[in-house]
Amino acid sequence: MSAAKKNAAIGALKFIEDGMVVGLGSGTTTGHFTRLLGEKMKKERISVVGVPTSYDSEMQAKKAGIPLIGLEREVDVAIDGADLIKDGYVLKGGGGALTREKVVDYAAEKFIVIADEGKIGNGKTYPVVVEVVPFARESVARALEKMGFEPELRVGGKKLGPVVTDNGNFLLDCTGKIPKDAARLERELNSIPGVVENGIFSRYFKIVIGNEKGSYEL
Amino acid sequence: MSAAKKNAAIGALKFIEDGMVVGLGSGTTTGHFTRLLGEKMKKERISVVGVPTSYDSEMQAKKAGIPLIGLEREVDVAIDGADLIKDGYVLKGGGGALTREKVVDYAAEKFIVIADEGKIGNGKTYPVVVEVVPFARESVARALEKMGFEPELRVGGKKLGPVVTDNGNFLLDCTGKIPKDAARLERELNSIPGVVENGIFSRYFKIVIGNEKGSYEL
Repeated sequence: MSAAKKNAAIGALKFIEDGMVVGLGSGTTTGHFTRLLGEKMKKERISVVGVPTSYDSEMQAKKAGIPLIGLEREVDVAIDGADLIKDGYVLKGGGGALTREKVVDYAAEKFIVIADEGKIGNGKTYPVVVEVVPFARESVARALEKMGFEPELRVGGKKLGPVVTDNGNFLLDCTGKIPKDAARLERELNSIPGVVENGIFSRYFKIVIGNEKGSYEL
Repeated sequence: MSAAKKNAAIGALKFIEDGMVVGLGSGTTTGHFTRLLGEKMKKERISVVGVPTSYDSEMQAKKAGIPLIGLEREVDVAIDGADLIKDGYVLKGGGGALTREKVVDYAAEKFIVIADEGKIGNGKTYPVVVEVVPFARESVARALEKMGFEPELRVGGKKLGPVVTDNGNFLLDCTGKIPKDAARLERELNSIPGVVENGIFSRYFKIVIGNEKGSYEL
């Protein structure tokens, strides 16, 4: 599995050029990418700045020696992982970094998803993760139930009570059916007052899949 | 002006019945309503619980003797103010409480806007207020500029730097043209990653206007 993740990361390296602003996703697969990008910068003597999508990716980037900025500049390319790849969209949010990830990924000129083959989701399911303002957790949960979802407040993050995101919010893991027009659901979820962002990512440029042997574009 | 605000508040009191869960908006007009509701509860010996929409409204409600809950119960009616009343929508957010206000107002079975006549906006303009996750302030501002708005980070709230909302976020005051289909813009703004909520409120049940003489429904 680790080789497949690494190969997906290697497959994305070719999109990076000298001088670029690069969005750095959060998670194990993008962790490989960040490490490899740091090595590439040293080896090829190219200069790249990263935009982290979580405290986790910030720490990974610092370890890899990649200088970081915020969103004061346009992002050229964002490399980010996925929890499940479906037809026309990917699901994210297992690591709780979905909001900053979508901020960076959608702001980028090119958003490239990297994942191992196991993330391709024929017949698999994954919850829609919804980040909510703490105050609104109950009214949002009721609105989601009316839409046919079973929302569950994410708890147990090595602290009592709810997991608190990097933005100070809560997460609702929502089991339920995603309609064919996932982009529409993505917009509808964001229209529920108190919802900050959700884990449906329907706008991407390319998906790079890694396996034991190498990588290919989906 | 104060009489007109008070009369609008009085006009909304008739919607409140014993046993109700009442959303309490933020601002001077709803401040009158909250005070008058507390008096009504004592005088008529009715029991009502309030749902505050800000720390400000929480403090007003406590002063008025209204017991408070969160969103663990359904809200029967929400009473809230407005900064500007246009055809088919109202603009809010001057007090920076727009997110919690919309959470409560839209969760309520009936959302009633109260305002003095001066808020009716023939020919007047007011910025669209956008609450953003701090991390996303620059990318959201660029997205808003592409939509034709001039976003300005709200600063100077008796502290250095940006105003921080009750939810820990920033505010962008956006000057620009609101199209006829304001409800659509309301949804579109919430689809920009990093936007938490915006000050266009297109879903309300009734508008109660106060003037020097009394109140009437718009």
